[in-house]
Amino acid sequence: MTYCVAIQSGDGLVFCSDSRTNAGPDLLSSYSKMHTFAFSGDRMVVILSAGNLATTQAVISRIEAELEDPGAEISLKSFRKMVEVAGYIASISREVQEQARLAVSDSSIDISASFIVGGQTQFSKPAIHLIYPAGNFISASAETPYLQIGESKYGKPILDRILGPTTSLEDAARCALVSMDSTIRANATVGPPIEILVYEAGTFESDHHIKLAEHDPYLNAIRHAWNEALQSAFSGLPLFAWEDLSCSSVGEVDDQDGPGTVTPLNRGH
Amino acid sequence: MTYCVAIQSGDGLVFCSDSRTNAGPDLLSSYSKMHTFAFSGDRMVVILSAGNLATTQAVISRIEAELEDPGAEISLKSFRKMVEVAGYIASISREVQEQARLAVSDSSIDISASFIVGGQTQFSKPAIHLIYPAGNFISASAETPYLQIGESKYGKPILDRILGPTTSLEDAARCALVSMDSTIRANATVGPPIEILVYEAGTFESDHHIKLAEHDPYLNAIRHAWNEALQSAFSGLPLFAWEDLSCSSVGEVDDQDGPGTVTPLNRGH
Repeated sequence: MTYCVAIQSGDGLVFCSDSRTNAGPDLLSSYSKMHTFAFSGDRMVVILSAGNLATTQAVISRIEAELEDPGAEISLKSFRKMVEVAGYIASISREVQEQARLAVSDSSIDISASFIVGGQTQFSKPAIHLIYPAGNFISASAETPYLQIGESKYGKPILDRILGPTTSLEDAARCALVSMDSTIRANATVGPPIEILVYEAGTFESDHHIKLAEHDPYLNAIRHAWNEALQSAFSGLPLFAWEDLSCSSVGEVDDQDGPGTVTPLNRGH
Repeated sequence: MTYCVAIQSGDGLVFCSDSRTNAGPDLLSSYSKMHTFAFSGDRMVVILSAGNLATTQAVISRIEAELEDPGAEISLKSFRKMVEVAGYIASISREVQEQARLAVSDSSIDISASFIVGGQTQFSKPAIHLIYPAGNFISASAETPYLQIGESKYGKPILDRILGPTTSLEDAARCALVSMDSTIRANATVGPPIEILVYEAGTFESDHHIKLAEHDPYLNAIRHAWNEALQSAFSGLPLFAWEDLSCSSVGEVDDQDGPGTVTPLNRGH
């Protein structure tokens, strides 16, 4: 399994991916799932991949081959808008999967793959798209500024709670990191190194692409700070009515209180 | 879908369940999934249910019928240990499912169900068990002090991060509530009212069984406090190395710093 997330912020884009690949519990290995293509002053495209490793590698190889081939009719550089780039990658993904499906028709191997494609061309704003295995795709929106592929459920609540219209690019990156860390803790098929890329709108490149290994000091610092902060956040949550009663003097007890009745009371009230 | 969670703490047990039942998006309704059986001074048993509603209702009806029938050979009151109670409920679940499977053999209806059974008898310590649709079951452990059924992934990270060997009963209940709230936000098939029951070891009853409707003041207070605390926790997370550079005077810049290099630095450092 895999977990990848991309976030669209007013200032740019954030991409985050794990690196664990598994074909059964005794065949774990590490592959980058973040593929970057930067063309100075013109465009930057980042592709995150999930699913069958042979399929995703074939798709990336084909994109690279068409970029290198001077005779290619189209390539990643042919398109004006990111939505057209997504359509191009989707059509390659469909073709690769069709060929693979014929080859494995007698087995139950799942050759499907999904992708998140994001970036910016000089002709358009930054954008992210999620390409489903079937080759259709969706974009993020102002209300849902993120897209996920792979093992997405564990890391979703923190994205829902933190990301908003005014979230800064770096806070979005930290949110992606916490979302990834929650997923890694919960699911053994998602694992480090964690890659994070922060893309600032209008730059067509990124100096902020880092790879965090399991015991990376920054990752440890984020984990430690987040756990401490959650513990402290917990100790500040409002008490149940029956807990508060035990702290009140008799004269303050609300007569209506009892099983099934709850009033919002703050600790120390 | 459904989400239920039970937590075992040194001081007792916590049970939490949602109330949404759905058979397709146009057939949503509300049913309690928490069933309590208390026998003063002798035992208290709580059953949380997930899966096919007809199956879970038939299992609960059968348990109630055997309790009311003076001629019944066995009932919830026959067993000395909670593990035997779990085995009894598991065998009823298997029988009910076998009958239902014959009845729906021509359709693709999923009649399976799973249960969490917890409580205490006067002969044993408090315990929780998860009964799978197949009728086999597991208990919680010191390392994994909680059990979940239904839509369990969204709410798992917060349980993993907060629950520990010294977590109080009420903090465990608040943790279950946050876990439930995260799930409700993420998944439309899980919904309020939320039921919480807190069982204190050795009491064989519970005065702390509450039902929180969608806009319950305490639930709102918990949500608000938790969101505020998370936002504040976020603002305290360590900065990426490149962010910190922008706050440093030139003399303080670490020459080794650059793309791909990250050092753990606190905001304000």
